[in-house]
Amino acid sequence: MKEKKENLTVVKIGGNVINDEQLLFQVLQDFCQLEGKKILIHGGGKKASALMQKMGITPRLIDGRRITDDAALEIVIMVYAGLINKSLVSRLQSMGCNALGMSGADLNAIKAHKRLVKEIDYGWVGDIEEVNDQHIAQLLETDFIPVFCAITHDNNGQLLNTNADSIASRVAAAMGKRYDTTLILCFEKDGILSDPEDDNSIIDSIDHSLYKELVKSGVISAGMLPKTESAFFALQHGAGKVYIAGPQALRTTPVKGTLLS
Amino acid sequence: MKEKKENLTVVKIGGNVINDEQLLFQVLQDFCQLEGKKILIHGGGKKASALMQKMGITPRLIDGRRITDDAALEIVIMVYAGLINKSLVSRLQSMGCNALGMSGADLNAIKAHKRLVKEIDYGWVGDIEEVNDQHIAQLLETDFIPVFCAITHDNNGQLLNTNADSIASRVAAAMGKRYDTTLILCFEKDGILSDPEDDNSIIDSIDHSLYKELVKSGVISAGMLPKTESAFFALQHGAGKVYIAGPQALRTTPVKGTLLS
Repeated sequence: MKEKKENLTVVKIGGNVINDEQLLFQVLQDFCQLEGKKILIHGGGKKASALMQKMGITPRLIDGRRITDDAALEIVIMVYAGLINKSLVSRLQSMGCNALGMSGADLNAIKAHKRLVKEIDYGWVGDIEEVNDQHIAQLLETDFIPVFCAITHDNNGQLLNTNADSIASRVAAAMGKRYDTTLILCFEKDGILSDPEDDNSIIDSIDHSLYKELVKSGVISAGMLPKTESAFFALQHGAGKVYIAGPQALRTTPVKGTLLS
Repeated sequence: MKEKKENLTVVKIGGNVINDEQLLFQVLQDFCQLEGKKILIHGGGKKASALMQKMGITPRLIDGRRITDDAALEIVIMVYAGLINKSLVSRLQSMGCNALGMSGADLNAIKAHKRLVKEIDYGWVGDIEEVNDQHIAQLLETDFIPVFCAITHDNNGQLLNTNADSIASRVAAAMGKRYDTTLILCFEKDGILSDPEDDNSIIDSIDHSLYKELVKSGVISAGMLPKTESAFFALQHGAGKVYIAGPQALRTTPVKGTLLS
């Protein structure tokens, strides 16, 4: 009989939550109420674009992925690791949740390399190589609650802009070695929709062959493609349960959303 | 016989180091070489002012202390907790130093309150109430190396701009309960000068009565007043040794600089 591992919930929130004060407050409260070990991972792309525009820099995105030149990198570090991360941490602390804000550089928690240039040069964008599950586990075992922003490093002094879904997926997969890990990727809908025009058409469960069909038929497209790929990666590499869900997911048992299988 | 406590060195660096690439590299390398437990604390005011100017905001400082309105607070959080903190952490990691960047909000490490309005309304500036020596010690005992930026919080969801010398002083004092703590406040000179015009006129050692004389005679003035006050606070509240020194201090044994007594 296998030893029962402790539960860990990895929650990823994006701009739709971060940019909505009331929703953010609710989601952070729900996160605080979660039992067991937990990790929060956040994006925040809209605030970065807003700051760029204030500074006269034109944000460049291809398929929702930011082209990150020197100026854009400075801004995403400031907004993700500074403004948003510390704002989330201070709110969580005020709710009694012992949050510790981090980037992938801190404790060398997430090592990446600069994305290789193929058709597109994404600039200072990181592809994750390795998650330091040992250091992250040391924090969790001390009852510290890591809150990761979407910045990693190459362990050679270079910070890298990194997709938050990818971070969530890789962290959930790596921590799956040590914990019975559930990953919840929150986005603006309450799950994957079988009819993109109907918010109630949530698919309860999706396996890889159904996913391929839905891609073929165009039901899953654009930004949902890399998100769903990240979700399947986590499931196939160590996470016990993976959901793509809405911001209400943390307050529903069982989790309301699309369960991957 | 008292039990011998482990050594802890708390080093504070400011803009004169952070803004000088070559000097910064050397100081970070020296910091990595320090034996025993260690904590780095950094300011970074010049970069914040530069970003404000880029964004068309006029920095307002009184006696070197920043008047922090809503817009200025956002910028110091972005620059201190984001850009500078993560840049220092990623460099330290590349040197093999297991750095963990933090603000006072993370792990509720440094709780402050908004400075009361007397003659001047400093805005979102924090006066430190309490340092969470327990949580900081838990990090040190795991051989994690905290790197603090000059941001604290009120534990009620509000982040606060806080003087880095004050943070260094209060952290060194609080950790003095648990460790044999040395505080090194680095600044642009190699110590307190008996003749402000002569960089070689370093005072080796200063006690509180000599300090009062030097204030009276005008030798210590302006920004050196709060710095020296912070240094004496640490010495009187738990730190074993306190130096005001230059950026070469980390590579000289005994420390080259002014020792407080």
